[in-house]
Amino acid sequence: MRYVRTAALALLAACGLAAPFAHAQWQALPDKAPEPTDNPTTPEKVALGRMLYLDPRFSSTGTVSCNSCHNVMLGGEDNRPFAMGVHGQMSGRSAPTVWNSAFYSGQFWDGRAASLEEQAKGPVVNAVEMGMKELDGAMNRVRHIEGYRVAFAKAFGPDAMTVDNAAKAVAAYERTLITPNGPFDRFVKGDKSALSEQQQRGMDLFASAGCIACHSGPAFSGPMLPNGMAFLNKFPTFTDNDYVEKYDFLKDLGRFEVTKNDADKHLFKVPTLRNIALTAPYFHNGAVQTLDEAVRVMAKTQLNRDLSDTEAADLVAFLNALTGEFPEQTMPRLPPTPGTTFEFSSAQ
Amino acid sequence: MRYVRTAALALLAACGLAAPFAHAQWQALPDKAPEPTDNPTTPEKVALGRMLYLDPRFSSTGTVSCNSCHNVMLGGEDNRPFAMGVHGQMSGRSAPTVWNSAFYSGQFWDGRAASLEEQAKGPVVNAVEMGMKELDGAMNRVRHIEGYRVAFAKAFGPDAMTVDNAAKAVAAYERTLITPNGPFDRFVKGDKSALSEQQQRGMDLFASAGCIACHSGPAFSGPMLPNGMAFLNKFPTFTDNDYVEKYDFLKDLGRFEVTKNDADKHLFKVPTLRNIALTAPYFHNGAVQTLDEAVRVMAKTQLNRDLSDTEAADLVAFLNALTGEFPEQTMPRLPPTPGTTFEFSSAQ
Repeated sequence: MRYVRTAALALLAACGLAAPFAHAQWQALPDKAPEPTDNPTTPEKVALGRMLYLDPRFSSTGTVSCNSCHNVMLGGEDNRPFAMGVHGQMSGRSAPTVWNSAFYSGQFWDGRAASLEEQAKGPVVNAVEMGMKELDGAMNRVRHIEGYRVAFAKAFGPDAMTVDNAAKAVAAYERTLITPNGPFDRFVKGDKSALSEQQQRGMDLFASAGCIACHSGPAFSGPMLPNGMAFLNKFPTFTDNDYVEKYDFLKDLGRFEVTKNDADKHLFKVPTLRNIALTAPYFHNGAVQTLDEAVRVMAKTQLNRDLSDTEAADLVAFLNALTGEFPEQTMPRLPPTPGTTFEFSSAQ
Repeated sequence: MRYVRTAALALLAACGLAAPFAHAQWQALPDKAPEPTDNPTTPEKVALGRMLYLDPRFSSTGTVSCNSCHNVMLGGEDNRPFAMGVHGQMSGRSAPTVWNSAFYSGQFWDGRAASLEEQAKGPVVNAVEMGMKELDGAMNRVRHIEGYRVAFAKAFGPDAMTVDNAAKAVAAYERTLITPNGPFDRFVKGDKSALSEQQQRGMDLFASAGCIACHSGPAFSGPMLPNGMAFLNKFPTFTDNDYVEKYDFLKDLGRFEVTKNDADKHLFKVPTLRNIALTAPYFHNGAVQTLDEAVRVMAKTQLNRDLSDTEAADLVAFLNALTGEFPEQTMPRLPPTPGTTFEFSSAQ
């Protein structure tokens, strides 16, 4: 873990530089997400993963699925400040988007999960999210559903109904949740009419002001480091401004909450800016309601810069160009439990 | 309302007769649901209605949609005893399935809504379901979403973003949620191999025992009466048995809760048996966990008959033949609120 932090801090130092970047550094989103060698994406895994992702029956109450907080019909999250799980309980952080999460080298706001596979197991047993006591309890529900037995066999072979394979299937599905070919991508590929003049001004400012130092790469979430090394940054970097108190940005200690190393205080994963227009409210605590305010907050807290109204509007226009094309999806039938159901929790 | 009750009671009397029914009375589910003349189904309304149905942003917390409790990826409900709405609050009745609800002449367990259009407005402003204070508050959120403005214009023409039109769109979508061509339907249409011998025995028993007296018609929910007249029945009819106390069937006064007429005590809408295998737990209070137990309860409380194990198994086998074909659906993109979101409720 030491190396993770060191690498992150070295890159963090680089983020302080507001060097202009050549256009060659802009990268369109690939049409396909990277896949780990031990979990190649197959149609059978994707089909199974989509069912599991949308199925609320593996939460304690039977009411919360992955999709409840990471809604693939919306911007891949819930448009709420804090996610709301079983019994109306609230998470301590805002749900990040699932769209393009395949381009991270670490998951969760604090990067504590090394992969999508590992991440998928977290919310199931989080007391305020899906509220199951044990992963195997959730898996036992899956095992009781004949249709899932068939789907696991197709994806992984017989006798393969394990927590790890369920996580692999969900991760494989999530790797299909990418949004290429937005206006920005078409522009980078040569269609100069894809961005308005205002959006192009915003793009230039995004580079010259230094936003791109951290929000780089095809997903605007920094480099993909070796697997398990989330690209982290300190937020807020500059604390001598009104935003920090107004939005209570110092309350959450970020990665420190996991590692208890002082140097990890207020380190957060650099989130993707893909589809950022669809994922208000903003920041790890969802405290900022609009994208206009969010770019002003970022400029001040990370670059110690006050944006003019025009600059803020230009950046917002550019960020709207990062909304991509969403793949059309079929709504799955979730395999049933004919003639019976589970004992779902009613009381908290 | 007097007429509704009288008509229902007259039919109720008929239900007491355990007369055998000729095979000619079996009806396959039509390929198309009936439509009211003032709301013909169009693809534009269906597309809009599907988005509204699946969109959680019109609940107070932004977490509960129609689909949360009437899940179209499952049996059209939530497989819970009582539905769970905003802040983990629970409804006092079990969520009925949305599948084939177009074949009812009245909606809700007590038939208090005359149409799907009227029903659609109920849960939005129910404090423990979607929790909005006023329908117009929900509609104001819809009005703030540009994509919905476009979709309403396509479906209803310009300046048509009203609560009534939203309800019409949802109802139009729900009329597409029908499940024809199940094994029973194929059998009735002439494919004698569509039902097993056990299922055919169950079918004969369903008629000879008298189940079909109330659970008649193409949806096994009784006749479609004039619009707004739900086909009601008394449940439980026979109270001198252990089931009534065990499952607390006398607690809920049914239609009486709406009308306060003594004669309406314990009157409930006769629910469809289509896809009944997918909608455990059973009854208005979701107190019965399995379909096997449900058929024994019904035989005893409605026909004062104790089923043998074989009879119960035959009936369950037959009821499994009422699971139909579910239309493949595309998962809609829900129109966004770029750069901002709504003020969702966090505290109860």
